[in-house]
Amino acid sequence: LRVPGFRFGAFAAGIKRAGVLDVALVAADRPAAAAAVFTTNRVQAAPVMVSRARVRAGVLSGIVVNSGNANACTGAQGLRDAKAMTRAAAAAVGAADRRVAVASTGVIGVPLPMDKVLPGIEGAAAALTGDGFEGFAEAILTTDRAKKTHVVRARLGAREVVVAGAAKGAGMIAPQMATTLAFVSTDAAVRPAWLRRVLRAEADVTFNRVLVDGDTSTNDSIFVLASGASGARPLGDDDKAGRIFRGALREVLDVLSRLLVADGEGAQHVVTIRVEGAPDEVAACAVARRIATSPLVKTAFFGSDPNWGRIVAAAGMAGVPFSPARVDLDFDSVRAGLAVAGAESGAHDVMRRPEYTVRLHLHAGRGAAQIATCDLGHPYVTVNADYRT
Amino acid sequence: LRVPGFRFGAFAAGIKRAGVLDVALVAADRPAAAAAVFTTNRVQAAPVMVSRARVRAGVLSGIVVNSGNANACTGAQGLRDAKAMTRAAAAAVGAADRRVAVASTGVIGVPLPMDKVLPGIEGAAAALTGDGFEGFAEAILTTDRAKKTHVVRARLGAREVVVAGAAKGAGMIAPQMATTLAFVSTDAAVRPAWLRRVLRAEADVTFNRVLVDGDTSTNDSIFVLASGASGARPLGDDDKAGRIFRGALREVLDVLSRLLVADGEGAQHVVTIRVEGAPDEVAACAVARRIATSPLVKTAFFGSDPNWGRIVAAAGMAGVPFSPARVDLDFDSVRAGLAVAGAESGAHDVMRRPEYTVRLHLHAGRGAAQIATCDLGHPYVTVNADYRT
Repeated sequence: LRVPGFRFGAFAAGIKRAGVLDVALVAADRPAAAAAVFTTNRVQAAPVMVSRARVRAGVLSGIVVNSGNANACTGAQGLRDAKAMTRAAAAAVGAADRRVAVASTGVIGVPLPMDKVLPGIEGAAAALTGDGFEGFAEAILTTDRAKKTHVVRARLGAREVVVAGAAKGAGMIAPQMATTLAFVSTDAAVRPAWLRRVLRAEADVTFNRVLVDGDTSTNDSIFVLASGASGARPLGDDDKAGRIFRGALREVLDVLSRLLVADGEGAQHVVTIRVEGAPDEVAACAVARRIATSPLVKTAFFGSDPNWGRIVAAAGMAGVPFSPARVDLDFDSVRAGLAVAGAESGAHDVMRRPEYTVRLHLHAGRGAAQIATCDLGHPYVTVNADYRT
Repeated sequence: LRVPGFRFGAFAAGIKRAGVLDVALVAADRPAAAAAVFTTNRVQAAPVMVSRARVRAGVLSGIVVNSGNANACTGAQGLRDAKAMTRAAAAAVGAADRRVAVASTGVIGVPLPMDKVLPGIEGAAAALTGDGFEGFAEAILTTDRAKKTHVVRARLGAREVVVAGAAKGAGMIAPQMATTLAFVSTDAAVRPAWLRRVLRAEADVTFNRVLVDGDTSTNDSIFVLASGASGARPLGDDDKAGRIFRGALREVLDVLSRLLVADGEGAQHVVTIRVEGAPDEVAACAVARRIATSPLVKTAFFGSDPNWGRIVAAAGMAGVPFSPARVDLDFDSVRAGLAVAGAESGAHDVMRRPEYTVRLHLHAGRGAAQIATCDLGHPYVTVNADYRT
């Protein structure tokens, strides 16, 4: 895979265990249109603070990333280290320092080992190549079970553009191994202001609609870089070409976000919570999110236990008015509930599938929304508790 | 123990397994001042709907309780059954039907076995005695590991009054075995309007400050009945006697609520999350609650892993502004954090204790609050997942 206008590099700097890629670099041949969304956590890692300020200009020449250490809760030293990373990357690729962003993922509360990070950036810069996408996608991982990439090609008038995404990390997979990071690069030409608006909107219906444990990391970041090297005319509004590009971006973000859930902490099931018949979409989303956050519901998913009462009770915690007696609840195509005797075994069979949908119809309006989540079982506890003791 | 003005009865009706007490009744010799607080879940069990309406008058002659079935998500039949329970209890004790409240706890979404419940109420009424408090406290349990009672005696002027509380159920201990119920009876004389206000305020700093898994049951109820049989003069404001009574009520509710946490789903640690230096008390409470709800923090408690970065990151999700660099974090008397090298083993030792306090000082104001919670470990998953499959 090549994304015209970009080179990718990766290097094993020894931040993680020896020989594993842990520093990544994407460099734009010429300054690219850029947009990003960041964590809403009040505790923001140093790289988030640095990158948030820099992406505001709407133009970036590159992004430097390290895994193995999140550079979060590291105080003034952390900010100095994040800036030193961008300086080193900028120098290595011949870009202005202020045009380079930075992202980190890994352990919280430990200063970056700069004696490894800085040589790592040199190494990643030396490895920059048009073919480097897969290495980049590998170097950003922490304890992910697999690389997470998705590529869409879309025709904009006479030109074809590529939209390539790479992501890491299903929430807080391992102790202090926080963070979702995603990077999308495209050779489409896009006006920065519209790119920012489109990214926000599409992230809201993709990454913001998946949930592993409800914890928001200190480092979550999604970046989009657009080089324009396809030669397609610049996109700047929701005309036909703009809608095609949005569709491609949405597909990339949607697939990446579902890969995150499937790789959640020991997850065995990807469960889509679909709420229909809510007063409006916001209410539907709130109900779906409350169900997806409930430890009682998630342990029932782990045990394939069609505990419909728990799901209705969790829905009742969202503050959205509905009549419990009128609710319809389906596990895929199997109806469950008080009125349906004998559905237990059918619902149990559905819940043994690796993917299924729980559909809750509230009969209280026309709002609908869905959240993808996973089960919470013994593997989650093992991964998250049995770390340093 | 006797609470003058009240008789208690219990009966094994076969709703739970044979021979186990599962119907309870408290009867006031004369109509007693009454107040109650109920679940905030939008999905409310039938007994909650019935009792909420009846307690508004501020006077009750009795409360009938069953365990083993929550009569929740049971529709119109559930409401008919709840009312039939109060009718049977009222007839058995010679009270007006509208002066009897009802509470249920147990499985959700299954109609009450009225062929067992109604004879059970007869049996409990026949067993009514001034000495029946312990049997009552036992009959309201579901899968609790132990009875939860606390009694305080307080001197109001020349008279001594007793405040006796019984509670059940650490949140959703077992699948579909929801519900916290608590019943406080006293021989103090209390004006209903003031009793309602006092109960609300004291429940807010006791039962509303403990958290097992963050799920709110469909049946949660706390009742207070005051007979006035002590002969002490009626309480109706925050004068000296009023303050003494409030203190006694607070102690009863505080001890009962902490017993709930200690008996949480397989809990091995009771952890008090104390937040200081927040902008105000509401903000402090929000931060403490967010920490206590985080599955990542709770699994770290299970593993005795002093993951201070996770706790700070969870605090950041509460939407309260503070500077992460200025936060102080202590496990009992052991300081943890970036600046304290070598504290890991000391903090780990603290976290192996059955009870300890995590103190987070935000240095962002003078607000303080605390929440008591428990760890989330393999026993929680086992209890909640491995039920019917």
